[in-house]
Amino acid sequence: MTPYQTLEQTFARVAKVNTAARKLGWDQRVMMPPGGAADRGEELGTLAAVAHELEASPAVAEALAAVDLGKLDAWQAANVREMRRRHVHAAAVPSSLIEARETVAARCEIAWRAARQSGDFASLLPLWRPVVANMREVAAIKAEALGVSPYDALMDPYDPGRRSVQVEALFADLEVFLRDALPKVLERQAREPAARLPVAHFPADQQRALGRKLMAAVGYDFHHGRLDDTTHPFSTGSSDDARVTARWDEADFISGLMAVLHETGHALYTRGKHSDWRWQPVGSHRGMTLHESQSLAMEMQVGRSRPFAEFWARLARDTFAGQGQDWSADNLHRWATRVAPGFIRVDADAVTYPMHIILRFRLEQQLVDGSLDPADVPDAWDDQMEALLGIRPPNHSLGCLQDMHWFDGAFGYFPTYSLGAMAAAQLFQAAERATPGLEGQLAQGDASAVVAWMRQHVHRVGCLYEPDDLLAKATGSVLSSVAFKRHIRERYL
Amino acid sequence: MTPYQTLEQTFARVAKVNTAARKLGWDQRVMMPPGGAADRGEELGTLAAVAHELEASPAVAEALAAVDLGKLDAWQAANVREMRRRHVHAAAVPSSLIEARETVAARCEIAWRAARQSGDFASLLPLWRPVVANMREVAAIKAEALGVSPYDALMDPYDPGRRSVQVEALFADLEVFLRDALPKVLERQAREPAARLPVAHFPADQQRALGRKLMAAVGYDFHHGRLDDTTHPFSTGSSDDARVTARWDEADFISGLMAVLHETGHALYTRGKHSDWRWQPVGSHRGMTLHESQSLAMEMQVGRSRPFAEFWARLARDTFAGQGQDWSADNLHRWATRVAPGFIRVDADAVTYPMHIILRFRLEQQLVDGSLDPADVPDAWDDQMEALLGIRPPNHSLGCLQDMHWFDGAFGYFPTYSLGAMAAAQLFQAAERATPGLEGQLAQGDASAVVAWMRQHVHRVGCLYEPDDLLAKATGSVLSSVAFKRHIRERYL
Repeated sequence: MTPYQTLEQTFARVAKVNTAARKLGWDQRVMMPPGGAADRGEELGTLAAVAHELEASPAVAEALAAVDLGKLDAWQAANVREMRRRHVHAAAVPSSLIEARETVAARCEIAWRAARQSGDFASLLPLWRPVVANMREVAAIKAEALGVSPYDALMDPYDPGRRSVQVEALFADLEVFLRDALPKVLERQAREPAARLPVAHFPADQQRALGRKLMAAVGYDFHHGRLDDTTHPFSTGSSDDARVTARWDEADFISGLMAVLHETGHALYTRGKHSDWRWQPVGSHRGMTLHESQSLAMEMQVGRSRPFAEFWARLARDTFAGQGQDWSADNLHRWATRVAPGFIRVDADAVTYPMHIILRFRLEQQLVDGSLDPADVPDAWDDQMEALLGIRPPNHSLGCLQDMHWFDGAFGYFPTYSLGAMAAAQLFQAAERATPGLEGQLAQGDASAVVAWMRQHVHRVGCLYEPDDLLAKATGSVLSSVAFKRHIRERYL
Repeated sequence: MTPYQTLEQTFARVAKVNTAARKLGWDQRVMMPPGGAADRGEELGTLAAVAHELEASPAVAEALAAVDLGKLDAWQAANVREMRRRHVHAAAVPSSLIEARETVAARCEIAWRAARQSGDFASLLPLWRPVVANMREVAAIKAEALGVSPYDALMDPYDPGRRSVQVEALFADLEVFLRDALPKVLERQAREPAARLPVAHFPADQQRALGRKLMAAVGYDFHHGRLDDTTHPFSTGSSDDARVTARWDEADFISGLMAVLHETGHALYTRGKHSDWRWQPVGSHRGMTLHESQSLAMEMQVGRSRPFAEFWARLARDTFAGQGQDWSADNLHRWATRVAPGFIRVDADAVTYPMHIILRFRLEQQLVDGSLDPADVPDAWDDQMEALLGIRPPNHSLGCLQDMHWFDGAFGYFPTYSLGAMAAAQLFQAAERATPGLEGQLAQGDASAVVAWMRQHVHRVGCLYEPDDLLAKATGSVLSSVAFKRHIRERYL
């Protein structure tokens, strides 16, 4: 075997262990009896260790050193680049630190569940300090290995190659725009008829059937997937088995439907891989910013657009025997796009959402570089929230305790949500330019042109290019806030 | 780390990879969308390869050579014995042969599905020959490594240490007994009122609810398991997540209920492991004969006993609003224990079932040693069936094509079904001797004494002893046909 063949074989094994683990993760959240948690933890820990040891192995290091790039085609060369990236991340951190992280993060995450309910940050703090300390140690080691700042080293696995200097510029620009736009959006909204959620009981069964129709409309193939119920909607799987889960609020069918579209966007990306490269790093998704761009393209760009609302409003009227003004596409669309500053990120609208992310991005940079002590996070959070959205959380449950990420040891992830929203707008507008008559198609519930465009320009391309190169080839520009701002202006102003 | 600690760590990893694979196998049969099959095959193939490479690894060979048995307690010493056994099996066969087996068996197994329907043995034969050839090669290599006959080498992983000379003696004895008993059983049955299956529609939902009640009655804990629907009932999982699946015939609720008890017996064994040794070979189940003893103890010894029928007949009357003579415990028990020679093993009653196994045991010995050519199997099968049960299959679907085992490459497995039935009777009668008033308890639906006895003498003991030593300690005798014959006489004569 050539060094390249050795690498392909090793990384294919890693990929299969990883999709096996993801499918066990699905089972854990959807099917597993509660008493199965301890064994499942052991199983997933073992599979993670097997994959990590393969990626970090000396055999991979040797093959990477020996591979003859001159003999490789573009896909193979990109494959090696991605393998090297994974190897550097995997080999940089000693396994003692990885194990320590798992131990302290698992303990903190369990305590966080109770703290989020009670709002008691003080008693969580002693469990969180070791998580932050471990993160700083990992960040320093990875920064050294990658030649970037500690924060950028943490962000790198989530959005490969993305650096905070670029993110800062994008977010600064966005903040200025949103500070200006938000009052105008709220004024305009106040002038319009108030959006009303139809008042009725929406049985979960009927919502699920409606959700399946929407999934089929955007090209989801149930021969290669499932829709199930969970507490927190998610999508996971592999390219021929990409599953979606949802939650049904029996007083509000719109939130569940939009979440279904969001997760279906993720699943379509997973399904759309180039089949020749499905088990190789180069065939994998291009990081979490691009992944989020696909979910938000389906939810925010397609799902909450006025044309597509024509379609799902009609389906909803048929499903729930809806009649009258509350059931008009106009009213339902107003409800699905209403804007209101609030404390909770996951409940935020498209206009205020980036402010939640800017807050987190700034605080976690300071947490990483040591300029912010964990004990000072609650006040810093509340101050930032007041500065960005003009509201101050009455308690920590509505403040710094709302999200699991930091308490589970995940730092550098948050930016991808808003970078993904920008990428979604940028990609969707490019798809729109390439598709005359798209609005009419969406009004008929036909999103196939958008999905086909994404498949060609994003899904099948995998990791052939760096994220910004992919965007530039697909849209004519690296990641920028231009399309997102245009989207906000057109829909909300 | 000492060599022993290295071994414990390696085999714990193997165990976790294996339970991960089993749970993915559950998903494959219960939840997976049909289009997910190809990826799942890759995932399970990879996990099997990871586990096999660990068991066969030079590091394990070295640690086994270096381990100081004098420093180990009884559990640890037994653990090393079982590790050595697994290592010898894993290391004996070159991976090229293992891969070849998977390829030829997968191809043959797919063709077998169609052949079983059509009865067309001739067109399956060319695909089956390479399976048999591969099996013979593996058997020869393992025979060399283990110092036993080729057939015994194939049987060894299923029932460790069991040798065909012992099985031949047990089966010869059983054949004589059954040839004598069967006509008498049929005569006696003819003198009694004919058993009648109540005629009604038994909705799957109600059967499932009834099944759950029976599972709870024999101590199944739904906090650590699930009951789902499948085409072929099975049980799988790990000790804190042991699941059961079932099939519901809406014209016959008894067959589904008895299958539930059968699979629950397997699940109780999985659940009952010694928790200190749950991830070690010594904590694992003691082979398929003992595993089958646990399912048959629940189905045949408890479930189809006259006292326990009192309980489930009452539950069934409550569930299906059953009234009249057909719903009496007497009639339902007669139905659940009726005897009739037939062609299909999985439909056979307790009296004729061993004849189906004796047939297969004899033919597969000849297939392994080369004295029977694959092409001659159909005739040999039909002749044996006529000799043993006095009936000749009208086609191969009802003959040699009925079971998947041989066409999927599994030889040496069949004996464990009937050895398990003997062990079930032997263990149940020992539990009965230790439990005054058991019949009254069973009539009340209380099988806890049997389960507790099995837990102590079988489940928690794991692989501390060799299978026959376990039986001797638990029942006073190595595996024998005495208890089984007594069981047949008492219930059927």
